Amino acid sequence: MKPSHIEHLGIAVTSIEEALPFFEFLTGDKCYAIEEVADQKVRTAFFKVGQTKIELLEPTCPESTIAKFIEKNGGRGGVHHVAFNVENVADALAEAKAAGLQLIDEAPRKGAENLMIAFLHPKSTKGILTELCQQPR
Amino acid sequence: MKPSHIEHLGIAVTSIEEALPFFEFLTGDKCYAIEEVADQKVRTAFFKVGQTKIELLEPTCPESTIAKFIEKNGGRGGVHHVAFNVENVADALAEAKAAGLQLIDEAPRKGAENLMIAFLHPKSTKGILTELCQQPR
Repeated sequence: MKPSHIEHLGIAVTSIEEALPFFEFLTGDKCYAIEEVADQKVRTAFFKVGQTKIELLEPTCPESTIAKFIEKNGGRGGVHHVAFNVENVADALAEAKAAGLQLIDEAPRKGAENLMIAFLHPKSTKGILTELCQQPR
Repeated sequence: MKPSHIEHLGIAVTSIEEALPFFEFLTGDKCYAIEEVADQKVRTAFFKVGQTKIELLEPTCPESTIAKFIEKNGGRGGVHHVAFNVENVADALAEAKAAGLQLIDEAPRKGAENLMIAFLHPKSTKGILTELCQQPR
């Protein structure tokens, strides 16, 4: 695998509205998009720092994996996943599988911002929930 | 504050040697430096992905804050901190203080790779241990 850059950091927050002022201060920029990803049960908000986006993730219901992450984390948010930009997610998944890594997604699927994405299981990625992303053509 | 890019992700690992093959696979690159930071009680190993480094942090003794992080995390590693590259750490710290953020370091200090660094407290940074970095002149 040879990712070009870290595409984004997924950061769990209890409330996007409550978190916006801090991230606007930290990045020196306004949030450039707020988007709901219904099948992931999250609202997302995006900032940019150099090549990398900061993707805030707010759960839209208690069954959201982000709600469970926050609960497990003592009610606090934090870094939820790290996403690497690759040329072709299907190829990268095949490489990861051949290397013996555990996949969460066996095939690429559509994520926020129309990226094709897939997740690797943190059990085989040193505790880091790892996302692979491919830019829309 | 207006960081130019995410300088590095600090990732706690129980053993650098044991973690190297995965990070070499993930980044498609060899680790380019291993360095001990004695006053932080860690060994560090560096990879590069685009603008951002991945800094593996292995505790060198049980009193290391990284050892405590791993213990609190059920014996597993994971993302320990996120470091933002700024033009001037002292100025960024003053801005952060004026914005009401809680500082861990009141003044810049020397970190790995000769960077000048300072940490902000995760209590005021939405649960993300946040580092500010300035490149050596």
